[in-house]
Amino acid sequence: MVNVSVIGASGFTGGELLRLLALHPEAEIVYATSRRYADTPVSGAHPNLRNVLDTVFTDSSADEVGKKSDMVFTATPHRVSMKIVPRLLETGTKVVDLSGDFRFSDKSVYEKYYDTVHESPDTEAVYGLPELHRSEIKKAGLVANPGCYPTTCILGLAPAVKAGLVDPERITADSKSGVSGAGASPKSSTQFCMANESVTAYSPTGHRHMPEIEEELRVFDPGVQVSFVPHLVPVNRGLTSTLHCYLKKAASEEEVRAVYSDFYQGEPFVRVLDVGEVPKLSAVRGSNYLDIGCFKIDEERNRLIIVSACDNLIKGAAGQAVQNMNIMLGFDETTGLSAAGLQP
Amino acid sequence: MVNVSVIGASGFTGGELLRLLALHPEAEIVYATSRRYADTPVSGAHPNLRNVLDTVFTDSSADEVGKKSDMVFTATPHRVSMKIVPRLLETGTKVVDLSGDFRFSDKSVYEKYYDTVHESPDTEAVYGLPELHRSEIKKAGLVANPGCYPTTCILGLAPAVKAGLVDPERITADSKSGVSGAGASPKSSTQFCMANESVTAYSPTGHRHMPEIEEELRVFDPGVQVSFVPHLVPVNRGLTSTLHCYLKKAASEEEVRAVYSDFYQGEPFVRVLDVGEVPKLSAVRGSNYLDIGCFKIDEERNRLIIVSACDNLIKGAAGQAVQNMNIMLGFDETTGLSAAGLQP
Amino acid sequence: MVNVSVIGASGFTGGELLRLLALHPEAEIVYATSRRYADTPVSGAHPNLRNVLDTVFTDSSADEVGKKSDMVFTATPHRVSMKIVPRLLETGTKVVDLSGDFRFSDKSVYEKYYDTVHESPDTEAVYGLPELHRSEIKKAGLVANPGCYPTTCILGLAPAVKAGLVDPERITADSKSGVSGAGASPKSSTQFCMANESVTAYSPTGHRHMPEIEEELRVFDPGVQVSFVPHLVPVNRGLTSTLHCYLKKAASEEEVRAVYSDFYQGEPFVRVLDVGEVPKLSAVRGSNYLDIGCFKIDEERNRLIIVSACDNLIKGAAGQAVQNMNIMLGFDETTGLSAAGLQP
Amino acid sequence: MVNVSVIGASGFTGGELLRLLALHPEAEIVYATSRRYADTPVSGAHPNLRNVLDTVFTDSSADEVGKKSDMVFTATPHRVSMKIVPRLLETGTKVVDLSGDFRFSDKSVYEKYYDTVHESPDTEAVYGLPELHRSEIKKAGLVANPGCYPTTCILGLAPAVKAGLVDPERITADSKSGVSGAGASPKSSTQFCMANESVTAYSPTGHRHMPEIEEELRVFDPGVQVSFVPHLVPVNRGLTSTLHCYLKKAASEEEVRAVYSDFYQGEPFVRVLDVGEVPKLSAVRGSNYLDIGCFKIDEERNRLIIVSACDNLIKGAAGQAVQNMNIMLGFDETTGLSAAGLQP
Repeated sequence: MVNVSVIGASGFTGGELLRLLALHPEAEIVYATSRRYADTPVSGAHPNLRNVLDTVFTDSSADEVGKKSDMVFTATPHRVSMKIVPRLLETGTKVVDLSGDFRFSDKSVYEKYYDTVHESPDTEAVYGLPELHRSEIKKAGLVANPGCYPTTCILGLAPAVKAGLVDPERITADSKSGVSGAGASPKSSTQFCMANESVTAYSPTGHRHMPEIEEELRVFDPGVQVSFVPHLVPVNRGLTSTLHCYLKKAASEEEVRAVYSDFYQGEPFVRVLDVGEVPKLSAVRGSNYLDIGCFKIDEERNRLIIVSACDNLIKGAAGQAVQNMNIMLGFDETTGLSAAGLQP
Repeated sequence: MVNVSVIGASGFTGGELLRLLALHPEAEIVYATSRRYADTPVSGAHPNLRNVLDTVFTDSSADEVGKKSDMVFTATPHRVSMKIVPRLLETGTKVVDLSGDFRFSDKSVYEKYYDTVHESPDTEAVYGLPELHRSEIKKAGLVANPGCYPTTCILGLAPAVKAGLVDPERITADSKSGVSGAGASPKSSTQFCMANESVTAYSPTGHRHMPEIEEELRVFDPGVQVSFVPHLVPVNRGLTSTLHCYLKKAASEEEVRAVYSDFYQGEPFVRVLDVGEVPKLSAVRGSNYLDIGCFKIDEERNRLIIVSACDNLIKGAAGQAVQNMNIMLGFDETTGLSAAGLQP
Repeated sequence: MVNVSVIGASGFTGGELLRLLALHPEAEIVYATSRRYADTPVSGAHPNLRNVLDTVFTDSSADEVGKKSDMVFTATPHRVSMKIVPRLLETGTKVVDLSGDFRFSDKSVYEKYYDTVHESPDTEAVYGLPELHRSEIKKAGLVANPGCYPTTCILGLAPAVKAGLVDPERITADSKSGVSGAGASPKSSTQFCMANESVTAYSPTGHRHMPEIEEELRVFDPGVQVSFVPHLVPVNRGLTSTLHCYLKKAASEEEVRAVYSDFYQGEPFVRVLDVGEVPKLSAVRGSNYLDIGCFKIDEERNRLIIVSACDNLIKGAAGQAVQNMNIMLGFDETTGLSAAGLQP
Repeated sequence: MVNVSVIGASGFTGGELLRLLALHPEAEIVYATSRRYADTPVSGAHPNLRNVLDTVFTDSSADEVGKKSDMVFTATPHRVSMKIVPRLLETGTKVVDLSGDFRFSDKSVYEKYYDTVHESPDTEAVYGLPELHRSEIKKAGLVANPGCYPTTCILGLAPAVKAGLVDPERITADSKSGVSGAGASPKSSTQFCMANESVTAYSPTGHRHMPEIEEELRVFDPGVQVSFVPHLVPVNRGLTSTLHCYLKKAASEEEVRAVYSDFYQGEPFVRVLDVGEVPKLSAVRGSNYLDIGCFKIDEERNRLIIVSACDNLIKGAAGQAVQNMNIMLGFDETTGLSAAGLQP
């Protein structure tokens, strides 16, 4: 058993980390920190954990948490993580950070899109997408857990970009996320009456996840440019991206699908659907699976459409973080992550 | 007062036509036909019309309906309209057809995308988008009412295409429709537990509305190609399209917006929002308005994002049909269509 | 044309008042006040009113508003209304107050359930339920507009209680309201992810609407006691109450229904459905109608079940307020309120 | 490892059984039958099970299934179960039946409420509510799994009825169920546009679950009568019952709660919340927990309000069935059922 802690454990992602770790056979939860909920049981913020996890929130310092933990998850906002993570690393613990602070190799891109100064520019991190970086994650002290949108867009596009199937400069990623992606704090746009019976595009030209998607895909083709527009849709959980591409070389739908199934051969959490089958949120909701499908070609217009989907709080956040932990600590990668999706 | 009838009045679009016509000060409803509901009051299928409209469904023939009506709305499925409409026209009535049967000038396009033979290829119709075809609608005997998706995509793109602002070959229209767009008949994909908490792309490469969009936009630029993917989203009403474009010539966001506000100057039902303002379904729900906004430019990637939205059953169907009727019969175009959106 | 104003016009109820009054043929909107939105167009808070109403919010005083208006709607919170309304009345304007401040004849009941001191205990008001108090409303200077829950419960129970059909001490009113009933201000319980996929009972034993329901029903039978529990359900608009009663004297379902249809004979906005027909929210959504139905009897247990439903923001708030205005000012009672429900 | 099978495995309950059994460490799935889906992988009907369970649906006979299985779950409609179950029992397998066919000790009650003749009136079954019948379940060959509504109503009322706290003749159970409770087959009432933005009472006086609730509670007090009205609410999963009671003897809220916490002492899946805390569907969704809370008393009216909630497909169906299997086969009762609820 290893000692694990969650800093910033009262939000949606923190709650999911606790839920997954509570049933993880190799992990023992040491700290769940929350300034607001300090000294109350975790079930105060997460009533689903009543009788499941009897941990009490604390307001412990990063130093204290780091010293007592083998692994710390920082589910803290950007700008907070950049302050806490270096202190945690100094205590010798390993860290999976769920903010955007350590996702970019080029700090100037970070500073442009997050409109802030990076206070810890030399802290090295590995981008925590196991399907692309498993071997580096294995050796990492700090893993930067990917954003929810990038998880679906990168995994949905990487095989086609790597294989040179699609025009890298004409990629459109139109993404739709459940409202939990916006966090648990009350705001006007996520009020029920605003979000329900509604679909809204936001940050249409400068969302922080766009450069994150491009950085990862440019490993395969430096010319990649993505027209990324995220949308809020009236569902609690789930995120799906429709990836509009143009074929650069002739290929059949089955050939395209084969490129994907080869690429993800042996991956425990990526499921490549059949040609024409579109991922359903209900198939991934509550699970760490990410589904990729569609693979339809419009020959007249040379278009190729790919659709990917995952649970934004699990494979798009907490589940992927636990998957990273499993890799970093040498556990079987699927430990504690075997739940199937909840349908309906 | 003119005599109007609705053929196929028991579905969602038929119900909306009845609702709008019941309160239209110039129209008297003569027939509401439905084979299934014949001899029952319209409130049997549309309980919202109880005490509002005391018409009884009949199973009357097209000839009978045509002879007694000055205007007939055919809310019938494709292939049915192509049989009924010519017979109606022979009786001397005017017709607004809400199916896809008469929307294409090139019947071979129709036959390809609808996978059928057109039985009435010589019947002439005007495409019923008043903002583009008002003067022809005024003189038409038959108007082909546009599809719901095309209404948002064509009106959202026409000004930019006409002004040569955007690359016509790189347009992506990613559209999201409420479930009422799929009609009232029970099917598996529109069951609550399938559609709720879900977002699903469908017909990603061959939807019938794609060539309809292209035909109208090619009037302005014959090179137009649209990557159109429709999605079902868990809302009852409302349809929004995110239009991903690439600028062909330099323009500021305000200049782009000005192209739109000039284009729609004086239009009673198209509202051009401010730069950065994204249309809300709640602003158009229950109304005949169509909102166009966003107008954001990503200079680094030369992208321009436009978002449009309307109520798929009103400006996307029944409301637009009544608007066409008003034009065809010489009424003020807004008669019976002044309701504001229901927010929330 | 009469001059009307809305104090507190930026919330949901205020928005609905503006929407209804904007299209009311006898009313001219003079003031729409909002401290927060002062100097911005009403479409800033209510984008559905863009191009519909070009009024600008002001932060005008009650005195100023009162002097320029023939009718003022106070859509202000309780405790605010009790301060403003007396000042408005002094200016000579008529007032419909939408808070709870003037709904109780016995101020001590108010003070108990609202846990406050009434600062204007001598201001006289008529309870604004036209179906029960039309003649007093006609002569009133101040009308206290009913709460949304009481509207469905009182109208759903009054005929049976008046006719002595049901045991007055064994009435259960289990009510379900759309989230808009909780207002537009962001709070945790009305966040999308909290309210969606959820149904929650609240204030189960001391809700402020319980004594309001009892006061009105005790006119017919002083022994009335109601077990009232309100619930939040994941819909935007709509409120339905299931009224569990026990028969005090033998009656058939048709006889019970007849008691209701007689009671509401000639009422423009109350629709008495057939035996076994349960009101649908879609039939009343967006309209001022209130539907009452079910009328089923369980003979073995002597139970009678009544179900009533309305749009909480219209017949349950703003529409009823306009109906009261129509009565107070001598207009036809249905003026501006003829919209049918939106289905779906 | 024991061999288990599911007859009728393509519906929602069948899918949940497969999902739970796929990860059950003691169970090996032998047959999953479905006439409609025979010869297709279970992921054809349940895409969430892709890569999780590679079983293929068959159309095997009850005899064949029974002979190869130690435990069979019959997720078949009523009237089908009464034919199949006796044949299964003859093969020597144990059976948990999820229909209504074997829930009543008095077959005439069954025949009245199900309006049919019972073809297997002598087959003996134990009512599968472990909290009330654990020791009998342990020895049973056939367990009749409770209905979803009864699970919340019986467990929510049993302690108070047994303790003589409440008037047994004045109990109202107003229940709200997610739409998955209505099954997976397309019907008009469960179409998205009908169920969304809607709340509907149904079977208000003669629902089949009412006598089931009464039978179980009459063990504690033969005078029990329940006014039970079920409602469809627009959520996928989850069921909550508001139980309106009248106190028969004086008690404080804490004393009432103590009666409940004593009654459920040691129960692994019943959580007794604090006074004033109302069960949330998100706390139980996806889990086998049933939460009971509220315990508020209205002293003036002598009312006691209890609220209970569970996931209708898990503790209300498939999870409870697996819990029964665990008891019948001597496994730890919580095996395979430890998942916490999904919040949000």
